[in-house]
Amino acid sequence: MKVALDAMGGDYAPDVTVAGAIDATKEFDLEVILVGNETLISNALKDKKGVTSKLSIVHSSEVVDMTEKASVAIRKKKDSSIRKAIELVKKGEADAVVSAGHSGVMMATSLFILGKLPNVDRPAIATIMPCLTGSFLLIDAGANVDCQPIHLLQFGYMGDAYYRAIFKKDKPRIALLSIGEEDTKGNELTRDAFKFMKDANYNFIGNIEGKDMFTGVADVIVCDGFIGNIALKVSEGLAETILKMLKMEITNIATGKLGYLMIKPAIRNFKKRTDYAEYGGAPLLGINGTSIVSHGRSSAKAIKNAIWVASEMAKKGVHNSIAESLKAI
Amino acid sequence: MKVALDAMGGDYAPDVTVAGAIDATKEFDLEVILVGNETLISNALKDKKGVTSKLSIVHSSEVVDMTEKASVAIRKKKDSSIRKAIELVKKGEADAVVSAGHSGVMMATSLFILGKLPNVDRPAIATIMPCLTGSFLLIDAGANVDCQPIHLLQFGYMGDAYYRAIFKKDKPRIALLSIGEEDTKGNELTRDAFKFMKDANYNFIGNIEGKDMFTGVADVIVCDGFIGNIALKVSEGLAETILKMLKMEITNIATGKLGYLMIKPAIRNFKKRTDYAEYGGAPLLGINGTSIVSHGRSSAKAIKNAIWVASEMAKKGVHNSIAESLKAI
Repeated sequence: MKVALDAMGGDYAPDVTVAGAIDATKEFDLEVILVGNETLISNALKDKKGVTSKLSIVHSSEVVDMTEKASVAIRKKKDSSIRKAIELVKKGEADAVVSAGHSGVMMATSLFILGKLPNVDRPAIATIMPCLTGSFLLIDAGANVDCQPIHLLQFGYMGDAYYRAIFKKDKPRIALLSIGEEDTKGNELTRDAFKFMKDANYNFIGNIEGKDMFTGVADVIVCDGFIGNIALKVSEGLAETILKMLKMEITNIATGKLGYLMIKPAIRNFKKRTDYAEYGGAPLLGINGTSIVSHGRSSAKAIKNAIWVASEMAKKGVHNSIAESLKAI
Repeated sequence: MKVALDAMGGDYAPDVTVAGAIDATKEFDLEVILVGNETLISNALKDKKGVTSKLSIVHSSEVVDMTEKASVAIRKKKDSSIRKAIELVKKGEADAVVSAGHSGVMMATSLFILGKLPNVDRPAIATIMPCLTGSFLLIDAGANVDCQPIHLLQFGYMGDAYYRAIFKKDKPRIALLSIGEEDTKGNELTRDAFKFMKDANYNFIGNIEGKDMFTGVADVIVCDGFIGNIALKVSEGLAETILKMLKMEITNIATGKLGYLMIKPAIRNFKKRTDYAEYGGAPLLGINGTSIVSHGRSSAKAIKNAIWVASEMAKKGVHNSIAESLKAI
């Protein structure tokens, strides 16, 4: 498998993207095409070990800025590293694309260049989140802020196909995020989506409430992109706040300092267990091709894992499975 | 001030409700009317200290079950403790009402008996939540799952009046929960609500994202009831999960047991600081009267605080301030 990596995307590019690419080629059976400014990439490669022929460079002269509007970037930056990387997939020179750059531009350009899968109305962003028993997939995490019931039904199919391929689980439990377990609970959108989803050709387990998101009762949690983004961001913000508040309380008590030293490895383990870097990136599902957005703050490890997920998705043909299962609708 | 308390509401009623009522009459300058089964209430009062003439009983023969539908309860249980307590406010025999019982029935019955304030389209549930710098008010936390922009505008007015009265802050910062700070970010509902809110007669500070909810940037956070309920429940669930995961990690390391003992008081302080009991209950804003729903699992302390908040709201005439400020629309 060949993965095109936007080497210029992310807060620490190209140093960290190049490092992640090298690690991916060392650890996995895949190749990486580094797309971006050739001079900068060559410089980043220079002082690193493990550079083999599994890495190559494709030059692009432009970089999308994080503050740019997606519509403007598409129109004006035709030689951006994001676009060039996506075009490699379109031309069949790469099997998948990864970027830690502007997620809106990545989504819009993937859609523009690769198009949608047949029977998909709205591609969605899927995000892996940690929970008590491992992790779950949240779809849509922010691409579509105003959805129709049919879109949520389709998100279920997309999440199902992705989860089966990447987590190797036969019948992932698909749930609808709502405000009560009964099918009569929810807003107009979720109540109508429930009616579609209960007859879907996947393992729909019904509504779950926000409080159940992290208990591991569902593998794939479906919601519209506005709700998904709020749920995701509230979780990130709260997790940070709780750790800060705990630390404040701990330093406020006499035995706190010593106690903190003793539990510090546990906090490190907790952080590792809940680190987004473990999951690599968020696949854009419903696109006619394999496209993954990584966090802007991605570490080399996050980039490495995103490259691996991209390669697995392409190898297993997740986008073909999605197209296949959507034929049923 | 006289507060009517649904003595039969909540998981530990009437023992805990009665205890909370006694504590409230001891600590604050107010009277409590205990509404419910006279025999059970008298029994609960029997072995308790501090029973004075500031407490009285009004008998009711029925109790609303937690599984009942609001519409059915209103039609069939005309002598329920919730309804009788609300009727005391209607008749002018009490200044405010508190229940830790069925929140849906409490909302529906308050609306049915007391009615809406003039210029209020939809009464809403407001919830106090802890954050890094203290606490903030989330409105609507679940009463209205499908809202129009005008409703969010009104929620802002309601939250503003409540916050000024209870938290004694002159110009509380009112924010709209969305998925980006710019006014162009959000879904159709929030984008349109933003246009109204920016001209509102309160201190509107614009959109905030989910990640900022707990940093203390806003005093009042406005959203529709579906989003609010998801944000609230995700937060509750995540906080529980994080503490569980941390504890698991701590018991997994050699120095964990001892370290945990040393930081245990800090965890207790953290729990106290984030305990809903500190805030007492969630006011139903927009009702023509003072009505507060408490958590089903309310402790005596939570009931006591809810009684206090109810009495303060009535004393300051929060519902009149809401009506007054809504005239401007």
